[in-house]
Amino acid sequence: MDSLATSSPKSDALTLRYGAAPPVAGPWNDVIAALLEHRSVRAYKGDALPAGTLEMLIAAASSAATSSNMQWWSAIAITDPVVKKELAAIAGNQKHIEQCPLFIAWVADMARNQRISDAEKTAFEAMPWLETFMVACIDAALAAQNAVVAAESLGLGTVYIGAMRNDPARVAELLGLPQQAFVVFGLCVGYADPTVRAEVKPRLPQSSVLHHGRYGAATEVADRLAYDRELENFSSRNEMQTTTWTQRVLNRLGPIKAMNGRERIRAALARLGFEIR
Amino acid sequence: MDSLATSSPKSDALTLRYGAAPPVAGPWNDVIAALLEHRSVRAYKGDALPAGTLEMLIAAASSAATSSNMQWWSAIAITDPVVKKELAAIAGNQKHIEQCPLFIAWVADMARNQRISDAEKTAFEAMPWLETFMVACIDAALAAQNAVVAAESLGLGTVYIGAMRNDPARVAELLGLPQQAFVVFGLCVGYADPTVRAEVKPRLPQSSVLHHGRYGAATEVADRLAYDRELENFSSRNEMQTTTWTQRVLNRLGPIKAMNGRERIRAALARLGFEIR
Repeated sequence: MDSLATSSPKSDALTLRYGAAPPVAGPWNDVIAALLEHRSVRAYKGDALPAGTLEMLIAAASSAATSSNMQWWSAIAITDPVVKKELAAIAGNQKHIEQCPLFIAWVADMARNQRISDAEKTAFEAMPWLETFMVACIDAALAAQNAVVAAESLGLGTVYIGAMRNDPARVAELLGLPQQAFVVFGLCVGYADPTVRAEVKPRLPQSSVLHHGRYGAATEVADRLAYDRELENFSSRNEMQTTTWTQRVLNRLGPIKAMNGRERIRAALARLGFEIR
Repeated sequence: MDSLATSSPKSDALTLRYGAAPPVAGPWNDVIAALLEHRSVRAYKGDALPAGTLEMLIAAASSAATSSNMQWWSAIAITDPVVKKELAAIAGNQKHIEQCPLFIAWVADMARNQRISDAEKTAFEAMPWLETFMVACIDAALAAQNAVVAAESLGLGTVYIGAMRNDPARVAELLGLPQQAFVVFGLCVGYADPTVRAEVKPRLPQSSVLHHGRYGAATEVADRLAYDRELENFSSRNEMQTTTWTQRVLNRLGPIKAMNGRERIRAALARLGFEIR
């Protein structure tokens, strides 16, 4: 426990992440401090990465848990400026995809295990289900998050690119994916441009996301109003528009057009060979 | 680069993870070393966790990226032996769920944002789609993986419990979940029983999971046969049955009965209020 109410690295880190509503402080170390310092980096220097960096990120990714050791993911490392430019366009012109020296496309790869079915002439009855599709996406996410932690430990910045799902078919074509494989998300990796501010973004208080024994929402409305103020302050320091979290949720989830066509992903995935029964 | 071919912590860690086919070694530090040391822990001492541990794990989880900052997840901390016993039964009698002092149920929580729709009297057109469901599961996975990294940094062991999906309705009932929330997976957290072996499990070589520029499978068959031997050796050291990876894939994905009813998850989620168009 901290014996003083004054600033410490731990209390500072919790305040950056939670604003005026930090949780009870607990055990602390350099790894937890590094995890709390995460921020998305959307401006990169062009500097190349040290030799072997990609391989160590993938070793971290491979070390994450995977459901029943089925290892449902692949990673595609992209450094070609022409391909990065095309991917940036698919993602609604996110310039950081062009800037970063390494872009990793994280693939929910059901094709690799499907090839074992073919080679061993054994029908895989477990393939065409929502369960298996979901597990493939989750395996990819666990692997990618380990790579993010490893990258940040090396002083690199990252940002996930969900907008790869704006056009899964075109992304699959660009990267030569077989049927039953698709890019769940991309990840920019590189050295942050030090001239561009990239601040830790506050999150909802723990009272809204952590439940003890049973789900509850007793503090939720008050939490949200307080968090609206935190995010309004964050956005006035860091962004063009100043707006509350509630307004962002309304903007993002209200109108279908905010999905950028991703409401059609089920049909797109069907064409890529995914049955999702 | 290592100047000697002899053993070093880095080469040892890569050999444990990849057996005879380690990748090119690259930059290294304590965080990467810790990530590579991950292993699933399925036997726990009963010792309680230090005060504030849960809160620090959740602070790490909250620090993970989340799609458009929508924060689609909740965590339910479970310490009640009666509830853990019921959850263990749902999971096919996984005793470690009863043993561990803390079980965290990770929730794909679309209910929280749905309540904003209700409170603000704004229809959320983006809710009923596979895209949004997938993002909720991925947000939960990114958060949980950060908690795993934090837990291991504190000397704790963990294991993910996918078998919460054997009966999503019963789990939701036990934990008092509202509609549009379900437990994607659980996580045991505690101190590993030092008398039970828990070894790093080898993974597929990087040549099978990491692609450069475009997807390829040129080395895959040879990689798999080599990996079959690695996993056979691992299982003969650690498990009751000795078997190859290929055989495990055939066992797990061949017969529908290996899914333990999870092929019905789409119907179960529909009853829990998830439209997944």
